[in-house]
Amino acid sequence: MLVNLVPVAVEANPGEIEGFAAIVFDVLRATSTITTALAAGYQKVYPVVEAEEAIEFARRIEAALAGERGGEKIPEFPHGNSPLEFWPGNNRDNDSLVLTTSNGTKAIRIASTHAAKTFIGSLLNAGAVARAALQTGWDICLVCAGTEGKFSLEDLLGAGFVLLELIGIADSLPQMDDLSVAACNLASYYINAPLKGLDEGRHGKKLIGLGRDMDLEWCAQLNRFEIAPAVNNGYVCL
Amino acid sequence: MLVNLVPVAVEANPGEIEGFAAIVFDVLRATSTITTALAAGYQKVYPVVEAEEAIEFARRIEAALAGERGGEKIPEFPHGNSPLEFWPGNNRDNDSLVLTTSNGTKAIRIASTHAAKTFIGSLLNAGAVARAALQTGWDICLVCAGTEGKFSLEDLLGAGFVLLELIGIADSLPQMDDLSVAACNLASYYINAPLKGLDEGRHGKKLIGLGRDMDLEWCAQLNRFEIAPAVNNGYVCL
Repeated sequence: MLVNLVPVAVEANPGEIEGFAAIVFDVLRATSTITTALAAGYQKVYPVVEAEEAIEFARRIEAALAGERGGEKIPEFPHGNSPLEFWPGNNRDNDSLVLTTSNGTKAIRIASTHAAKTFIGSLLNAGAVARAALQTGWDICLVCAGTEGKFSLEDLLGAGFVLLELIGIADSLPQMDDLSVAACNLASYYINAPLKGLDEGRHGKKLIGLGRDMDLEWCAQLNRFEIAPAVNNGYVCL
Repeated sequence: MLVNLVPVAVEANPGEIEGFAAIVFDVLRATSTITTALAAGYQKVYPVVEAEEAIEFARRIEAALAGERGGEKIPEFPHGNSPLEFWPGNNRDNDSLVLTTSNGTKAIRIASTHAAKTFIGSLLNAGAVARAALQTGWDICLVCAGTEGKFSLEDLLGAGFVLLELIGIADSLPQMDDLSVAACNLASYYINAPLKGLDEGRHGKKLIGLGRDMDLEWCAQLNRFEIAPAVNNGYVCL
């Protein structure tokens, strides 16, 4: 089995993803939020790239609406992109959620346009998503969203934690490209302090500056959920 | 002080390097070989991009000639790109060396075209090059050569070891981009086994397949030399 890693989704070459099982990482916060929302009882999360499109689409299908730009809730949106807004889900008044974010929803769109199957990865569900991707029997492409076209530490780390899980259960060692090896060993470095890894990146620092410390704490929970969300007909579900 | 990292030199945006002190890494093997050749007594190493240009230039200035493509010595060249060919230097019959390699000489050309000053980095001289770059007082750009346009584990590792040295001597913690943080923590992961880091990358494995194990052993020697080679008028010198 081959494992490749795309460091910044918007710079991906379609050939790197085509025919692979893709796992998308926007650890802070889109893929962590989608994972949390589905764990909390949402049935479908629709990742949408543009805010206008998200508003119109949520109205049309009568879904809940969440959106973020530059780390902050889009003013006219009822929800932002904090996973904590969707947990524990007691107040959930809808089965469907439409979500638009700065980087993550774009990365999911890119991956699912080209991959044979697209999973949603995060620290929260590292083990479950590794198992699900392995079960496809396909080669795996780890697609990191990055932040505004730049490499993000926390996405490489998320990919690394999934790889550690994968190596733990695969029959033989996957053939990894150099970025996958780097991700894997970086995850080993942070294994006893995943939150430190999220704190040290630029985007993590920005979110802390916006008072979102608790979001980082939430997103740093390794294997909090045993679910492997996947893209299916334009939405993410279990 | 800012520290940025360019993962693949040929994809660098000139704006990332312009005005910075650049440190170029092609750990396997161009920058390790240049460092070794200068430590062995060569006065000037001319990095040249094209093989034809290298042959003609070496003839014109009556310099020694070394060149590699795809990890192997260019057949008609007297020397390849192994640092061991230049150490200990007893048989050295020239003060100048013209070197052309698959990735490293291109990376040096790119960095020195844009940077305020360009240093040659490797594990062999991590501490010395960190001190020299710090002394410029400029922001620092770590330029990894990569291999055939792809990210290389060993170059990120070289950059990380220089960063660990830099952090150890700087008055305050530099402001690092996410790739620099990743490099730094990856170097911490490999600190007691740098050779393992060189062995695990694709290019390292390829060189081992070509019987160049001893080159990897040589290039993995952390702080073997106390020299900081820099580009000056198109050649590298001390």
